[in-house]
Amino acid sequence: MIPDDAIGALGAMLGERLSTGKSDLALHGRSETWHAEMPPDAVCYPRDTEEVSRIVALCARYGVPVIGWGTGTALEGHASAPRGGLTVDFREMAAVLEVRAEDMLVRVQPGCTRGALNTELRATGLMFPVDPGADASLGGMAMTRASGTTAVRYGTMRDQVRALEVVLPDGRVIRTGTLAAKSSAGYDLTGLFVGSEGTLGLVTELTLKLHGQPEAVSAAVCAFPSTEAAIETVILATQMGLRPARIEFVDAATAAILNAHDGGRFEEAPHLLLEFHGSDAAVAEEAERFGDLAAEAGAGGYRWATQAEERTALWTMRHRAYHTILASRPGSTAVVTDVCVPISRMGDAIERARAEIAASPIPGPILGHVGDGNYHAILLVDRGDPAELAAAKRLSDGMVAHALELGGTATGEHGVGLGKLHFMEREHGAAWDVMGAIKRAIDPEGIMNPGKLVRQN
Amino acid sequence: MIPDDAIGALGAMLGERLSTGKSDLALHGRSETWHAEMPPDAVCYPRDTEEVSRIVALCARYGVPVIGWGTGTALEGHASAPRGGLTVDFREMAAVLEVRAEDMLVRVQPGCTRGALNTELRATGLMFPVDPGADASLGGMAMTRASGTTAVRYGTMRDQVRALEVVLPDGRVIRTGTLAAKSSAGYDLTGLFVGSEGTLGLVTELTLKLHGQPEAVSAAVCAFPSTEAAIETVILATQMGLRPARIEFVDAATAAILNAHDGGRFEEAPHLLLEFHGSDAAVAEEAERFGDLAAEAGAGGYRWATQAEERTALWTMRHRAYHTILASRPGSTAVVTDVCVPISRMGDAIERARAEIAASPIPGPILGHVGDGNYHAILLVDRGDPAELAAAKRLSDGMVAHALELGGTATGEHGVGLGKLHFMEREHGAAWDVMGAIKRAIDPEGIMNPGKLVRQN
Repeated sequence: MIPDDAIGALGAMLGERLSTGKSDLALHGRSETWHAEMPPDAVCYPRDTEEVSRIVALCARYGVPVIGWGTGTALEGHASAPRGGLTVDFREMAAVLEVRAEDMLVRVQPGCTRGALNTELRATGLMFPVDPGADASLGGMAMTRASGTTAVRYGTMRDQVRALEVVLPDGRVIRTGTLAAKSSAGYDLTGLFVGSEGTLGLVTELTLKLHGQPEAVSAAVCAFPSTEAAIETVILATQMGLRPARIEFVDAATAAILNAHDGGRFEEAPHLLLEFHGSDAAVAEEAERFGDLAAEAGAGGYRWATQAEERTALWTMRHRAYHTILASRPGSTAVVTDVCVPISRMGDAIERARAEIAASPIPGPILGHVGDGNYHAILLVDRGDPAELAAAKRLSDGMVAHALELGGTATGEHGVGLGKLHFMEREHGAAWDVMGAIKRAIDPEGIMNPGKLVRQN
Repeated sequence: MIPDDAIGALGAMLGERLSTGKSDLALHGRSETWHAEMPPDAVCYPRDTEEVSRIVALCARYGVPVIGWGTGTALEGHASAPRGGLTVDFREMAAVLEVRAEDMLVRVQPGCTRGALNTELRATGLMFPVDPGADASLGGMAMTRASGTTAVRYGTMRDQVRALEVVLPDGRVIRTGTLAAKSSAGYDLTGLFVGSEGTLGLVTELTLKLHGQPEAVSAAVCAFPSTEAAIETVILATQMGLRPARIEFVDAATAAILNAHDGGRFEEAPHLLLEFHGSDAAVAEEAERFGDLAAEAGAGGYRWATQAEERTALWTMRHRAYHTILASRPGSTAVVTDVCVPISRMGDAIERARAEIAASPIPGPILGHVGDGNYHAILLVDRGDPAELAAAKRLSDGMVAHALELGGTATGEHGVGLGKLHFMEREHGAAWDVMGAIKRAIDPEGIMNPGKLVRQN
C-alpha cells in the first residue's frame, strides 16, 4: 500500500504520468514465465533523472517500495511487486543521448532497447552486440547482467557498461565509472550496480561500449553425433584461439521442434550454430578451421551461410526459438533453466539433464550459449497443472544442484529475481551475507525492489 | 603499535614466521617511488588460508591494522603502514594450485608472480597475459586492478579474475564467483574485491582466466610526425576492428633516453610499438593493415620484427623503460603519473602535458598504453630537493585535473594507495561516499589497510 499522502504528492509531481489504473498495474505485475502476477500499487513514467530522484526521495520518506521497469521481459519475476509499491517505468526515458564514435561509446537512457540503439547506430559503422532473446531495455539488461548469443566473443553486460548514473535509495544521484577504458580509482561501483537487479538504486543513464560492425560475417551449421562431440569441438576451438561471435547449441529435441514449427531443416541431432566476425580473410580462415575440428569430431553437414538472408533466417529462428518451443505445446508456460558450468563439464551436465527430463512427464528441449557453458532447458508445463509445475521445478532444482557441484552457477544470464532466490545461500555461502551487508549499507530501509536477490528478513 | 598480548599470540601461532626485525619492517614500509617509508610493527608469513583467517581474527580482536603484501612493487604506497600494524607477506603462499586447461583457468595463491605463473604454464599452450612493468604478485595485481601493455587486447585484472577466496576483516573466509564463464547470481563481489587494495579483506586464492599462447606473433615499430598522428592511427585501427596485443606509445624524450641508455635505435620522434597475436595469416593481415594506416598518417620507418629475439629485445626495453628513465638522471626518484582519458582526447592531453613538463624545471618523458588511453609521465626529481618534488606533484595534479575534465580517471592502472587519495572526491563525487559505506559495512572497525582508498575519519 502507498499512503494517500504519498500518492497525492506523486500525483501532484507527475500528473497523468502517475497511474493506478487496474490494467496498468496488472501489466506491471505480470511475468513472462510461470511466476504469479504481483502488481504494484501505482506505476509512474518519469522523464528525467531529476524527476526520478524526487520520486525515490518521496518513496524513501514514506517507506514505499520502488521497482524499476524496462520492457517486462525478465524471466524470474525481477520486476514484480510482491510487497506492492511504486513501479518506475522508464519508457519515457528511452533516448540515445550521445554517440562518441572515436571512443566507441554511447550514452543512453535506461528505457532505450538494444534494438532501438542498433537502429540508431546503423549508419555509424558501430554496433552494440549483447542480444538476449527479447528486445529488452538496456537498463534492464544491465540490471540482470544479461548476455545472449554473442557473449562468447563480445562479453556480457558486465563487460559493456563503462559508466552509470544511479539514483540511490535516498534520492541522491551518483555517477560511477568514467569515459576512460580502464581505471584503478577505487571500488568498481559500476560493476556492483550491474547485476544488482534494482535492489541498490535506479539506473538513469548508461555509458556503453560499442564495437565495430564486422567487415565480413559468415555463419555455419553442423550436426554432431553426440552432445559430447559438439562440446569437445567448442573446447578445442577455444583453446586454439578461434573466436566465433556465436556458438549456439540446440539439442535433437529443439531441432525437431524448429523443423515442425518454424520451417527448420535440421537433422534430428545435436547441432552447433556458428557465426564468425572479422575481415573477409579472417572469417574464411576461422570458419574453415572450425569446420576441420568439427569434421574430426564426426560432425556432418557443415554448411556455410555467407548470404545475409540465409544468416538472418538462421538467427531469427534461433532468437525466436523460446517462443517456438512454447507454442509447440499449446496452453503451456515455461520453467526456463539457466545454469552455467565450467565448459569441461558441460557435455556431462547436458546429458544428465536430458536423461532426467526424458524420465519426467514433461518435455524440455535444451539449447544454449555453449561457448560460455550456459544453456537452457525450456521445461514446458501445462498452465493449469500444479503437478507439472512441481515436476519442472524439481528438474530445474536438480540441474542447479548439479551445476553448483561442478563449480558453476544457478544463473548464467537470467538473474535471481524471485525464481532463483532459494539457491543463493547454497551458491554463495557466507558471501551471500556480504551481499546482504552491502544491501543494508546502500539501502538501509530496504525500499529498492524488496523481496529480491538478498536474504529476506 | 601492536599490543604485547597480540604479538605473543601471533608469535605462538607463527613462530619464526612472525618478524619484528628492523630490516624486515623497513623493507615492508618502503615504496618503489617517492613515498616516505612507513613500516609496520610486525611482518608475518602465513602458509595457508586457515592461518590467514586466524591471524586476521586475532588482529580484529585487538584492533590491529592488517596490510597485505605481495612483492612491494606498488607505486602509490599501497602497502605502507601509516598507522603501523601487521603486514601479511604472502611469499609462502605462492603456489600454482591447479591448471584447468579445458576451462582455460588456473587457481593460484596470492604470492605467485605473473612470471612464475607463465613459467609454469609454458608447456600447456596457455598463458596469463597481464603484464605490469614489475614481476608483481597476482594477489597484488588483483588488488590494484593492474594492467600493462596487453590490456588493449586481453583486458585488465578486472577481466581476468574469475573467482576469489577472501578472508574478511573478522576472519571469515568467503568464496566469490564460480568456475563458470559468466553468472547473473547476485552482486559481483569478485569485481568489488578486485581493485579494493586490501581495504576489504585479504585475498588468499585467485582463479584466473588463461588465454592460448598465440600461434604467431609479430611486432612492429614506427615513428610518427606528431603525437596526434600516432593517436589518430590508433583510433582508426580500433574502429576498424584491428586488435593488436600491444599498442605502446613512447614520446621523443623517451626515445632519446632509450637510445642513450639502453641501446635503442629510435628516431627522436613519437613512436608506436606494436605486437600482433593470432594465426600466421591473421597476424600478417593485421600488421599490414596497421602499416597502411600508419603510412597514411605520415609515419615512417615501419619496421617488422617477426624474429623472436628481435621482439624480445624490443619488449624487454619497453618493460625496463621505467628503470632506464630513472637511471638517466642519477640520484633521482620518480613521481609517475597514470591518468587514463577517453581516447578521442588523448592526443590533446598528452601534448598539453608535454608542454607543461617542458615549461617546468624537471624532465618527464611520457610513455604508455595508448590503446587504452592510459599513459605515464615519469617525472624525475632529485631525491634531496623538496622544490622539485613539489613541482612534480603540481604537474601530476594538473594532469589529473585535466584528465578528469575530459571524463577520464586519476589512475588507469597504478591504483589509489596514498598517492591518489586526494583526487578521489573530485573524481567520484558522492559515489565516493558509497565506497565509504561499503567499506564500513564490510570492515566496520577499519582494520584492513587503513589510511587508503576511502575517506579518512
